[in-house]
Amino acid sequence: MNSHPEINGERLLARLDMFAKIGATPGGGVNRQALTPGDREARALLTRLAKARSFSVFQDDAANLFIRMEGRDGSQPPLLIGSHLDSQPSGGRFDGALGTLTAFEVLESLADAGVEPERPVEVVAWTNEEGCRFAPGCMGSRAFVEGKIPAEWADLRASDDGARFEDERLSTIDALAADSSHRRLGFPVAAYLELHIEQGPSLESEEIPIGIVTGVQGTRWLEVAFEGQTAHAGTTALQYRRDPLKALTMGLSALYAGVMPENADARFTVGRIAVAPGSVNAIPATASCTIDLRHPETAVLDRLEDDIRSGLTEAAARENVSVAIRKTVDMEPVTFSSDMVAALQAAAQKAGLPTKTMISGAFHDALFVAGCAPSAMIFVPCRDGLSHNEAEYVKPEDSVTGARMFLASVLELLPRA
Amino acid sequence: MNSHPEINGERLLARLDMFAKIGATPGGGVNRQALTPGDREARALLTRLAKARSFSVFQDDAANLFIRMEGRDGSQPPLLIGSHLDSQPSGGRFDGALGTLTAFEVLESLADAGVEPERPVEVVAWTNEEGCRFAPGCMGSRAFVEGKIPAEWADLRASDDGARFEDERLSTIDALAADSSHRRLGFPVAAYLELHIEQGPSLESEEIPIGIVTGVQGTRWLEVAFEGQTAHAGTTALQYRRDPLKALTMGLSALYAGVMPENADARFTVGRIAVAPGSVNAIPATASCTIDLRHPETAVLDRLEDDIRSGLTEAAARENVSVAIRKTVDMEPVTFSSDMVAALQAAAQKAGLPTKTMISGAFHDALFVAGCAPSAMIFVPCRDGLSHNEAEYVKPEDSVTGARMFLASVLELLPRA
Repeated sequence: MNSHPEINGERLLARLDMFAKIGATPGGGVNRQALTPGDREARALLTRLAKARSFSVFQDDAANLFIRMEGRDGSQPPLLIGSHLDSQPSGGRFDGALGTLTAFEVLESLADAGVEPERPVEVVAWTNEEGCRFAPGCMGSRAFVEGKIPAEWADLRASDDGARFEDERLSTIDALAADSSHRRLGFPVAAYLELHIEQGPSLESEEIPIGIVTGVQGTRWLEVAFEGQTAHAGTTALQYRRDPLKALTMGLSALYAGVMPENADARFTVGRIAVAPGSVNAIPATASCTIDLRHPETAVLDRLEDDIRSGLTEAAARENVSVAIRKTVDMEPVTFSSDMVAALQAAAQKAGLPTKTMISGAFHDALFVAGCAPSAMIFVPCRDGLSHNEAEYVKPEDSVTGARMFLASVLELLPRA
Repeated sequence: MNSHPEINGERLLARLDMFAKIGATPGGGVNRQALTPGDREARALLTRLAKARSFSVFQDDAANLFIRMEGRDGSQPPLLIGSHLDSQPSGGRFDGALGTLTAFEVLESLADAGVEPERPVEVVAWTNEEGCRFAPGCMGSRAFVEGKIPAEWADLRASDDGARFEDERLSTIDALAADSSHRRLGFPVAAYLELHIEQGPSLESEEIPIGIVTGVQGTRWLEVAFEGQTAHAGTTALQYRRDPLKALTMGLSALYAGVMPENADARFTVGRIAVAPGSVNAIPATASCTIDLRHPETAVLDRLEDDIRSGLTEAAARENVSVAIRKTVDMEPVTFSSDMVAALQAAAQKAGLPTKTMISGAFHDALFVAGCAPSAMIFVPCRDGLSHNEAEYVKPEDSVTGARMFLASVLELLPRA
């Protein structure tokens, strides 16, 4: 038989529930950070589901996981579809998982309908998209595009338990070695398509079920380290203090008051802060924080980064402490292929789905894959724009509508790609 | 023989070096936090030194360590002299140790001279003066004055390794059980005298070798906990954010700018700060800090605490987050016995030592012991007023001069007390 493929909504929603149990948190979210046992369990489950449908499974040296459906012409580069399975420490159940399971649902719906695609279609689960346990994020797609593991990752250690990235990478690959074939890192791809929750409020508030993403804003991560002098809290008068936390606090408060109000498209976030020695009655010796800065325009990012550096440097000088600022991530803004965007718009029209074109506020693996293949993204609404939060939520009907849009897009792309 | 007792400066300085090796840090300081193996090692060393001089050794249920030299009338309450042996996580080698070893040197110098004091003289090493591993500080002297271990300490856990206070207290006592006799918690004391480094800059800058302390400023510790909502750093626009770290930063920056400059005698210190979940690309869900607030006047402390509470509460409201503020320590300012101060001034005059009367910026065990016996303190200069710092330093001659003053004071107090 060769019927018209259709999304099995109940199956997709059941799969979402299955994966949400892996690393489930009391608050209803998931903690399935990259290369942890939870992440491996999710990879193993997806592999079992793939083998049950006799799709072939591959891993590369970045522990990226591929599930392949053969096409009429196996020599053609595949259409690559997918997302990631890792999460934030207190993350939601949809970020990454929805895109990966939607792509797998599309593969199954094609198989259910007995469709033999023009070219191979492969589902991918990229390694460490979140970047919270090992920085930077999107390691899997970065390595895929570069065709190798960057040398500087060899010494990386986990922010939580100090585990070595190298060890965790190899153990994760080994855990599935028996059920998968090895695949070299980086291969020709016809096109890449990724579905994700918006992680912002606009689709929900405008009641539009589908976002067609035309690009991704740029992201920069800074590590800020102030160093002063610890001393007794009770005896050290103001003029004798060199307090690095005071410098950090005064510097950050000016940035909080300035950066985002003055630039509506800017995103300024301090996600980590720490002091040492960390004693209630001792002035700290050091104070450090991270800064996550985003904007759709490189020129504005440059200016904001300059403002941040000068603001923190002046704050350090005022408190007679030193400051070191290190850039750990610098992701340029990306504009997706106009052909891909046009294909998605055509698919939406055929499916009769209202859409909105938009810029992604978050970075995604598609941002990197765009460096080696035409790429694009589809967004679905999430409640209150909440993400990286246990309360992250997508209405079942929105997940199913997104999958229908994703299937229509795949059918639109297969002959074109 | 019964010669005039004299301080053995070389012995005192050698002892300071011996104890500085216990928990020594690479930076030349010590990490000998309360009830840790390092603290126990220091207690054991002092006990060995005491037994070598055939002084008797006692422990009470707060793990306070007492070394007793008998007096002509053993039924008289003892003159109690001493300090503490625990340190900050990156503390100096003099804070506590100098006072404890000076008191022990006085005991030895009396024994060397064959002096039989009018009444027993006891050296005490109080438990957990610093309060950094287990809050509050001065646990040993608090419990001594109350005559019992406060019930609320039963559930305390260490800020570093989460160890239970109860377990650490009992293990510390057991470690010396064979070498000491048990002593009930709290007993009549004729008077208490403690020597300590100033931990401030005034004696050094005014080139005065001895400070006679007439009182201790009040200290309050607050634990501040903001709660907001974690969300994605890249996609969450300003109007959708409920950022607890922004609220904390804005609130603290106003306090840093106000409290100390406006009140020359005030001391405002944030020694700990933390956020959760602590991911570089997630707005924090919670942000917390400690505040150490000090001033010599209760009325001013009340006003400053009100300012802090209202400032942080308003900052929370502005960011649409909640804040909880808990007072964990409230030590009223104390004025020492005028008779004790007069005795110290008489001793200094006889010893021909220039002195300065002053208020202590730090709290000390003497602040609590003053609740059950006439108490006073002697300060010696330290370099740059630095303390709670590996660079904490006292000139050898200043340590010896302090010990001479301490011996003279003990001889002055023995007939009076």
